[in-house]
Amino acid sequence: MGYTKDDELAINTIRILAVDATSKANSGHPGAPMGLAPAAHVLFNKFLSFNPKSSSWINRDRFVLSNGHGCLLQYCLLHLFGYDLSLDDIKNFRQIDSKTPGHPEMGDTDGIEVTTGPLGQGFANAVGLAIAQANAAAEFNQDGFDIITNYTYAIFGDGCAMEGVASEAASTAGHLQLGNLIMIYDDNHISIDGDTNCQFTEDVLKRFDAYGWHIQHVEEGNTDLEGIEAAIAKAKEVKDKPSVIKVTTTIGYGSKLQGTGGVHGNALKEDDAEQIKEKFGFNPKEHFVVPQKVYELYSKRAAEGAAVEEKWNQLLEKYGQQHKELHAELLRRQAQKLPEGWEKKLPTYKPSDKANASRKLSEAVLEAIHEVLPELIGGSADLTGSNNTRWKNATDFQPPSTGLGKWSGRYIRYGVREHSMGAIMNGISAYGLHIPFGGTFLNFVSYAAGAVRLSSLSHERVIWVATHDSIGLGEDGPTHQPIETLAHFRALPNMMVWRPADGNETSAAYYMALTSTKTPSILALTRQNLPQLENSTIAHAIKGGYTVIEAESADITLVSTGSEVSLCVDTVKLLKDKHNLTARVVSLPCWEIFDAQDKEYRLSILPDGIPSLSVEVMSTLGWERYSHEQFGLNRFGASGPYKEVYKKFEFTPEGVAKRAVATVDFYKGVKPRSPVNRAFQQLI
Amino acid sequence: MGYTKDDELAINTIRILAVDATSKANSGHPGAPMGLAPAAHVLFNKFLSFNPKSSSWINRDRFVLSNGHGCLLQYCLLHLFGYDLSLDDIKNFRQIDSKTPGHPEMGDTDGIEVTTGPLGQGFANAVGLAIAQANAAAEFNQDGFDIITNYTYAIFGDGCAMEGVASEAASTAGHLQLGNLIMIYDDNHISIDGDTNCQFTEDVLKRFDAYGWHIQHVEEGNTDLEGIEAAIAKAKEVKDKPSVIKVTTTIGYGSKLQGTGGVHGNALKEDDAEQIKEKFGFNPKEHFVVPQKVYELYSKRAAEGAAVEEKWNQLLEKYGQQHKELHAELLRRQAQKLPEGWEKKLPTYKPSDKANASRKLSEAVLEAIHEVLPELIGGSADLTGSNNTRWKNATDFQPPSTGLGKWSGRYIRYGVREHSMGAIMNGISAYGLHIPFGGTFLNFVSYAAGAVRLSSLSHERVIWVATHDSIGLGEDGPTHQPIETLAHFRALPNMMVWRPADGNETSAAYYMALTSTKTPSILALTRQNLPQLENSTIAHAIKGGYTVIEAESADITLVSTGSEVSLCVDTVKLLKDKHNLTARVVSLPCWEIFDAQDKEYRLSILPDGIPSLSVEVMSTLGWERYSHEQFGLNRFGASGPYKEVYKKFEFTPEGVAKRAVATVDFYKGVKPRSPVNRAFQQLI
Repeated sequence: MGYTKDDELAINTIRILAVDATSKANSGHPGAPMGLAPAAHVLFNKFLSFNPKSSSWINRDRFVLSNGHGCLLQYCLLHLFGYDLSLDDIKNFRQIDSKTPGHPEMGDTDGIEVTTGPLGQGFANAVGLAIAQANAAAEFNQDGFDIITNYTYAIFGDGCAMEGVASEAASTAGHLQLGNLIMIYDDNHISIDGDTNCQFTEDVLKRFDAYGWHIQHVEEGNTDLEGIEAAIAKAKEVKDKPSVIKVTTTIGYGSKLQGTGGVHGNALKEDDAEQIKEKFGFNPKEHFVVPQKVYELYSKRAAEGAAVEEKWNQLLEKYGQQHKELHAELLRRQAQKLPEGWEKKLPTYKPSDKANASRKLSEAVLEAIHEVLPELIGGSADLTGSNNTRWKNATDFQPPSTGLGKWSGRYIRYGVREHSMGAIMNGISAYGLHIPFGGTFLNFVSYAAGAVRLSSLSHERVIWVATHDSIGLGEDGPTHQPIETLAHFRALPNMMVWRPADGNETSAAYYMALTSTKTPSILALTRQNLPQLENSTIAHAIKGGYTVIEAESADITLVSTGSEVSLCVDTVKLLKDKHNLTARVVSLPCWEIFDAQDKEYRLSILPDGIPSLSVEVMSTLGWERYSHEQFGLNRFGASGPYKEVYKKFEFTPEGVAKRAVATVDFYKGVKPRSPVNRAFQQLI
Repeated sequence: MGYTKDDELAINTIRILAVDATSKANSGHPGAPMGLAPAAHVLFNKFLSFNPKSSSWINRDRFVLSNGHGCLLQYCLLHLFGYDLSLDDIKNFRQIDSKTPGHPEMGDTDGIEVTTGPLGQGFANAVGLAIAQANAAAEFNQDGFDIITNYTYAIFGDGCAMEGVASEAASTAGHLQLGNLIMIYDDNHISIDGDTNCQFTEDVLKRFDAYGWHIQHVEEGNTDLEGIEAAIAKAKEVKDKPSVIKVTTTIGYGSKLQGTGGVHGNALKEDDAEQIKEKFGFNPKEHFVVPQKVYELYSKRAAEGAAVEEKWNQLLEKYGQQHKELHAELLRRQAQKLPEGWEKKLPTYKPSDKANASRKLSEAVLEAIHEVLPELIGGSADLTGSNNTRWKNATDFQPPSTGLGKWSGRYIRYGVREHSMGAIMNGISAYGLHIPFGGTFLNFVSYAAGAVRLSSLSHERVIWVATHDSIGLGEDGPTHQPIETLAHFRALPNMMVWRPADGNETSAAYYMALTSTKTPSILALTRQNLPQLENSTIAHAIKGGYTVIEAESADITLVSTGSEVSLCVDTVKLLKDKHNLTARVVSLPCWEIFDAQDKEYRLSILPDGIPSLSVEVMSTLGWERYSHEQFGLNRFGASGPYKEVYKKFEFTPEGVAKRAVATVDFYKGVKPRSPVNRAFQQLI
């Protein structure tokens, strides 16, 4: 309350900076920042707890701009409050290697919590940030020591509200009663196609009410700062529901085109820019002007934030004295360090150990490590019993009032909502104290493709437990049998796709997934049993590829992953007995890791001079990178018992041998170069 | 009304068939069919208009089982009504090459309208079916000739209700006021993780009310046949809203485990199966028993349906007399035949024609052909002005009451809802009278991956207008720049991925997309301008690959797509002038089509003995199939003006030449086999 002309000046400064930056870039979205400046001004100055000089302070309030195209709003706020973002950075908006890319990217810009722009993602990230907060608070707070108390605030627009990923996340947040989550819905009635009347006429607040959210509406979002403040204050009082505040704004407020699609995604014309400046009392001929008063106002707020953190630091120090272990854990987890010796808990196997499905081997890993890794927090998209993602005696992450779990629980019931599961995991990871994992069938990781891509781009350590990884799932049939899925995610930069062949490879996959702090992983796991292989060890598998069966003067290399490695092993004997051919077998559980090994190692596994055949029961696309010939499934599968499905498509020792013989014949008299022997290095 | 013991017997017969079939397969989902049998019985016997002997009758009511795992419900109904599905087919449930796969697959089973199982898809397909009906009715119905009057009915469960794709589609359906759409929500409170209390506690009906649907609740869904009937009848009276009827049922009704997750996805134990049969008056030791009375009851209904069709056929005959042209059009479109000579409208270009963005070349195609192809119905996920998907003077498909369009309009405002756009297009295509297309950025086709995969699996002729197809989109940055997307969809069976290099190739892409009645297409199109190439013709491009620049005794082949083909052309001169190397250039706009050409042709384009380098500004994954060395982008892009982004990643003539020289050097003294020269054929 008590807003003055200075507040108005600050708001108009943001609006005009957005105009100037988009004009200079001749690209970008001025409309949303101009409409949202009042709400953001109130939020940042009256509520958000943060210290611009310490943007990784763990108890800071999190802010997410889900409508990431409006990022100038956030860039301007970061600059004005004194984050590491200069006015020159704003001038460099949307230029190569600037700190101010077209959409906010986590890691590249100080103060950006999550990468947004693909609509709906930020919304779901915010739910993940709130889940992480609630869990961490329950774990770390002690009597007299409210160490973790932050809120998560987010702004989203009509575009986000239309996306299914946000709907899913909203339903989850309502179920979870996340009182620590407050969102502002920018109700400006405009999306790219124009007035939302043409495509989006639902009652958004009623929908959120149905999800179990607390709902409010501020009708004069362009001017009613008191109203915005009162609504956020009221939302903070509601402890057992997430809150959404619909703030009705005018897109491009102040422009001659305000309230129209014309101001959404284009820079303003020069005369329009000039008239706005004049209207708001700025010199129409000057650009990128920030009145000193605005810097002062925002600096004052920044100083308050710094003082809050300082007080918190004192509390943390006392906490360290009275709760030494918890304190050490907090610091360890914040540093993304795993506890000393944790890896000794990883199960290892001998060839004589019983055959098992890799989804169960994955369960054994989780069972073995969950106590030593309290940062692990996981769940499933309603396939718990199939994904084997829940360790015995796990406690659900649930509002205690449900009687179904606790805030300190580490098992999340994501529901049949794969896309939001992926985006929520990104948010949990971004909070900075957890390693999230989530289970679904491999085929349905595709539903979450939008979120998975952002895990990679944002360097989030997120783990997908992707079971039922091939036609080996059997009876569910082609609708559930992935064919293209591994090729898809193998083509995604900064993503480790693992397809382990047995127990040791499964442990290796977890080892790499957990220790790679900047890379997400997808673990493709079988429904069916797999034997434990000779020569498979964690040490071998963490190189991404290794030789399972070596042979001198081999006629062929069979290179494979997962369930087909043991099939290749079975084929070796057949090739020798029936065709007098000597075969080597290579397991390549993770291409990305294998590619990172030195060339000498890679050539020792896939040597020059020996023709090679890849065997994987899905699309062959990409296998040309590691083999001369490919045996796969470039068609959809079939519904039936899995052994019969394998047989139908000739994935039997006989079927592999037939193709191996064809390969050897084809390369008779040719000493082919190894496929990993290349003319030049790729840019990375 | 007036239900008798015979109705009860029929309902229990379905329940017991579901028990027997899952027991025999030892796999599958008995619970949903057992709970839903009453609702389905009422729907099929009192409302659904269909003729089992004529399952492609265009004016049949459409039925979609969105919770496809409950497919035994549908299989049993199809059998009992006399579709081409025998009791033996039911006994063959989930066996290889049966008509009764684990989830219903369109095309493989008589009477199945769309492929369901991946949750939420069927829901959105139903919205598409209803859109197609509304559009066709407006187009074909004439005074006294209500030719197209069918309804679309669907059943969905909690799983579908949780999926974002269904939320998106529900919002769209509400906006569109689809009074021809009636859905039953199977409220059984159970999903795989158990009681929905653990993850799904929202008020579903309130949510649908917010979307603008008409809502009802039948509390005793296991027994209250009159209540179910009254609700559906009431829903039919509501003409300006889609309807949802929440029917509260007991999953696995009759089982000892009824109402629990135990009966969701597992066959019942033998003793349980026996007690159900006893309870329902069946012999506990007999299997797959259908009382004659049930066949009689359902045959009677089937005969009524046949009579309705017969009457309709008579109406159609008169229609043919009075509205000859419309009648011919209806038959033509139903036969999926394009009008004679339509392809002459496709724009063609000479090398001297001006450079243009392929998104605009795509717009020129739509502008040129929309009049001769009235079956084209398209839209955009809120990117109309960017995707260039709307021809001048297009009319929106909108409820007339909005004042924004008409039912006969052919431009759909999908909103920022890519996933449901994909699934709705599948439904529109499945209706049988339209060719749907939808626009978004290529990067966001990934949001719809679940639906795109089902286009392929279901053989739906769906066209994605996927613009802004690379780092060439520039300033929006890495969040919007596809890297993995083409590899993903190239790995998907039965999908044509096109990346045209100029105008003629763009026309060729449309030609193939429109004439391939059983294959969907993704057209990857540029934001930036492209020159018109020498030697590019529609005839060349529809082979999927052709030689743009031929050269005798070439040192290297540069093979490329889309915006990088002209870059390769520019490189040829540089290679000659600076390095005295002769290069050929090959354009490969569609791998899938190229692969379908005979080997001789493919070897003429990518000949033995010449090293080749692929150039495409995204993931190189898969390019090993067509080239010896690859230049691509196996990392995320950057935000900036597109020319600078291309420069940053060395996609310049100099950058290509550098790698071409390295390739030639690497293969000095080696006459490499063509990458298309392979040891054996893939299974297809």
